[in-house]
Amino acid sequence: MSRAVVLLSGGLDSTVTLAYALAERDEVIPLTIDYGQRHEREIMAAKNVVNYYGLDSHTIMDIDLHCFVSSALTSSSLTIPERGSVESIREGIPVTYVPARNIIFLSIAAGLCESESAGRVYIGANAVDYSGYPDCRPEFFGQFQRVLEVGTKTGVEGNAVEIVTPIIDLTKGEIVSLGKELGAPLQLTWSCYRGGRVACGRCDSCLLRLKGFEEAGTRDPIPYEEDE
Amino acid sequence: MSRAVVLLSGGLDSTVTLAYALAERDEVIPLTIDYGQRHEREIMAAKNVVNYYGLDSHTIMDIDLHCFVSSALTSSSLTIPERGSVESIREGIPVTYVPARNIIFLSIAAGLCESESAGRVYIGANAVDYSGYPDCRPEFFGQFQRVLEVGTKTGVEGNAVEIVTPIIDLTKGEIVSLGKELGAPLQLTWSCYRGGRVACGRCDSCLLRLKGFEEAGTRDPIPYEEDE
Repeated sequence: MSRAVVLLSGGLDSTVTLAYALAERDEVIPLTIDYGQRHEREIMAAKNVVNYYGLDSHTIMDIDLHCFVSSALTSSSLTIPERGSVESIREGIPVTYVPARNIIFLSIAAGLCESESAGRVYIGANAVDYSGYPDCRPEFFGQFQRVLEVGTKTGVEGNAVEIVTPIIDLTKGEIVSLGKELGAPLQLTWSCYRGGRVACGRCDSCLLRLKGFEEAGTRDPIPYEEDE
Repeated sequence: MSRAVVLLSGGLDSTVTLAYALAERDEVIPLTIDYGQRHEREIMAAKNVVNYYGLDSHTIMDIDLHCFVSSALTSSSLTIPERGSVESIREGIPVTYVPARNIIFLSIAAGLCESESAGRVYIGANAVDYSGYPDCRPEFFGQFQRVLEVGTKTGVEGNAVEIVTPIIDLTKGEIVSLGKELGAPLQLTWSCYRGGRVACGRCDSCLLRLKGFEEAGTRDPIPYEEDE
């Protein structure tokens, strides 16, 4: 049994990744980073998922990225886009791109791994339905692995923290199917970029999620505005 | 004139680096990261340096790394070592190593660059008197540059944020000399790992600093315990 830090946002992808790490029999340290995203709904979802699995250590780290004014996820002066259809998402890097987000997240997770003597960090990045984020692609993770090899204590000792991306090549439909197969609590997850009482069903994240459940031939268990 | 983020801890090395960036005529955005180091003395030094130069934007970002229990700089249960002489510092990676610190700092700085349309990030890392930190070596910065090329918006657009390490090859003595030549306010800087009213003169950081002033043939302008 080895120790692993799992980056857990409370969304669909990271929750399935957590379920995967547990199925690998890793001793899991969930790490949630509260970076001033627009709402606290996502953090609550992460807490609910951790409770569901009865994990006793949940590291929630605050880092205020409100000074990153160029992203619609950290700046309230920008609008979350509504495109009408999932097909129109694939047009360059969207305004919801948070500069260097996964680089920052992986850095913190790698540091926590070193401090906790954990050998792996799991991240639920996905390059299939990546909707334009450069820091969700395999090339990025490969280069970041090199950084951990040359720039950390464990790395120079020949024992670098290993970055694990179990769902990077899966479609959203395959992620939903894997989550169901692993018994992941998909009903507790939150993907919507808005922080309403129920999911909006119209932002990029909702559109991709709904497409995933459709492809998996199953119903999304969370409520949406249009259901009400 | 181009814009640049300068990582400014308030220490000798980062202050000389700031002076260097200003001499390059870059429009400088100083970034200080308050990561829960043992004392606030260092943050105050950074503020004093920014005031000295009359810079109007100073981003101070909080990120609580107290959960990194393995470092003497973030955990109060570990002791800052006293070795007696500067020669004995070079024995592996010291307990003051903060896991992934420069990786975390550079990630945040690169994100701020992207958000502020700044093309460079300056970091006052030094590989000569590096006292065992793997994330101060040129190999590390080279790999991190690759990460910015493949993992950020500006990178995939062919315009990655450039990491600049102007003092990486200098001895401590040369850094002091450069600082004096550039008129850097060395009297306002703080290097001591302890947060006393005056510098202790005995921790690794004080020993290296004092060696630097000695090599440069000049007196360190800050007060030390033994002067009192």
